[in-house]
Amino acid sequence: MAFLFNSDAARGAVFRRAFASGLPDLQFFQAGEDVDPDKIRYLISWVTPDDIARYRNLEILFSIGAGIDQFKLASVPEHVKLVRMVEDNIIRMMQEYVALGVLTLHREAIAYREHQKNEEWREVAVPHATARRVGFLGLGMLAQAAIERLKPFQFPLTGWSRRQKDIEAVGCFYGEDQFVSFLQQTDILICLLPLTDETRGILNAPLFDHLPNGARLLHVGRGPQLDQAALIEALDSGHLAGAMLDVTDPEPLPAGHPLWLHPKVLITPHIASVTQPETAAKFVIDNIERHRAGKKLIGLIDRKLGY
Amino acid sequence: MAFLFNSDAARGAVFRRAFASGLPDLQFFQAGEDVDPDKIRYLISWVTPDDIARYRNLEILFSIGAGIDQFKLASVPEHVKLVRMVEDNIIRMMQEYVALGVLTLHREAIAYREHQKNEEWREVAVPHATARRVGFLGLGMLAQAAIERLKPFQFPLTGWSRRQKDIEAVGCFYGEDQFVSFLQQTDILICLLPLTDETRGILNAPLFDHLPNGARLLHVGRGPQLDQAALIEALDSGHLAGAMLDVTDPEPLPAGHPLWLHPKVLITPHIASVTQPETAAKFVIDNIERHRAGKKLIGLIDRKLGY
Repeated sequence: MAFLFNSDAARGAVFRRAFASGLPDLQFFQAGEDVDPDKIRYLISWVTPDDIARYRNLEILFSIGAGIDQFKLASVPEHVKLVRMVEDNIIRMMQEYVALGVLTLHREAIAYREHQKNEEWREVAVPHATARRVGFLGLGMLAQAAIERLKPFQFPLTGWSRRQKDIEAVGCFYGEDQFVSFLQQTDILICLLPLTDETRGILNAPLFDHLPNGARLLHVGRGPQLDQAALIEALDSGHLAGAMLDVTDPEPLPAGHPLWLHPKVLITPHIASVTQPETAAKFVIDNIERHRAGKKLIGLIDRKLGY
Repeated sequence: MAFLFNSDAARGAVFRRAFASGLPDLQFFQAGEDVDPDKIRYLISWVTPDDIARYRNLEILFSIGAGIDQFKLASVPEHVKLVRMVEDNIIRMMQEYVALGVLTLHREAIAYREHQKNEEWREVAVPHATARRVGFLGLGMLAQAAIERLKPFQFPLTGWSRRQKDIEAVGCFYGEDQFVSFLQQTDILICLLPLTDETRGILNAPLFDHLPNGARLLHVGRGPQLDQAALIEALDSGHLAGAMLDVTDPEPLPAGHPLWLHPKVLITPHIASVTQPETAAKFVIDNIERHRAGKKLIGLIDRKLGY
């Protein structure tokens, strides 16, 4: 009976140590090591391994991230349980990153980056926080946690979700009918939607057109939600004032891509929320123990709903 | 009886409009306009005008900033009242800027700026917020306001002040005896001290040596508090990991200065807290009315204490 760790070696070493003390009866393998595929009962990975069909006795496929949209579900047999990562660090890091992103866009840090590059000491006027309207596309757990960190800064806060929500001190828009109204009153748009067929390409030219002149984008959803060419066009026309992107398509963003050196774009390499190996290993070990004890798994995905 | 506005013309226009409706009996002049110096009873300025002795009937000298360290007090007659700017916007903007600065340094935004410049998609490891110790040099009104915005992020917070203070959930160090102990446990050092003879050059090589390896500096005090050559040396040696500077010496920082293009330095042009002309004008008008009514001025400086 064995566990296969299919991700980077540094995190794998942390998992190996945690498993050695937490589940000593389970053999531990990292990707690339020689292993009898029939032994693998549990597997953790970021994407579905191409050879997943080899692991005929697989019981649980763990995602190393907060979502499972990167899994090709068609290749995962129906009887295999899917589990997403549930870890306080993911929430805490997203709170930090969204606060950093909103303040970066609000306080013109991208413009100052360019001024510094030109060795130019020049002030940019900034509106009062109460005049900078921040809107969340997606009002799930991560968005609501990020909202808690933004509230003290006095930004007017709104959000849009597919179904109606009620969040204290947040103007909640919902459904297709209210989508345009939401966009029209958003100065800093934060995308925190999961990637689904409905959200693929949602950040496109018509959406940007609905935003007020001078609006900014903070993208912490998934790369394929953004029409990158449309973003560059909206920035170059002057309609949008800036964008901070933690996700791109593809990832890694290849050298030479026009987003890299765009003067109104700030890029981070998908680090808004990173799974911490220590707490992630503990989560996986606890879940395997629950599974063996016949208990309900934490973070179990409903394959029909897709989350 | 007249008021002289000795600062930039754009802000002056805002003041002129506010005075026209708020104090219509008072003549309003902007720097450069032809004025009988004997008429000037009130003057607002960033630095003390070289010709301040001309204004023999001056009653109040207003600072356009939160501090008065930029005034040459020796040239200001004893009977002239000194008033600093007290304005909610200054506090609010400093809260934003310090939160932005701490999150920028904590989440490695300077390293990512360099990676982006090199079109390189590369993650930098970041410790948990509870392992990133944030320490304030100076625990005055602005520091305490900034601390309120940082508390939710779980950074361990400490501060050092000349005299003992007691602030909830903040480890308070004080006096010369505890200065080194404070530095030795500070990963992100925020300088929010006023500029005095004691704080001039306080951010120097011995201070940097006391900070832990990999520490970072957020400087929102005054330019002359920092030994810029010592900072560059501490960054280049690898002892310090990064610095975000809102103040420099001189200001504006001249093109060609080695700080501008340093890969571990982020510079903003003294914009952490900017006096908003609308609310500043209201503050000055209210204070002149108090003065005329014989009431105590808000923001009056005790010349013996220097603040």
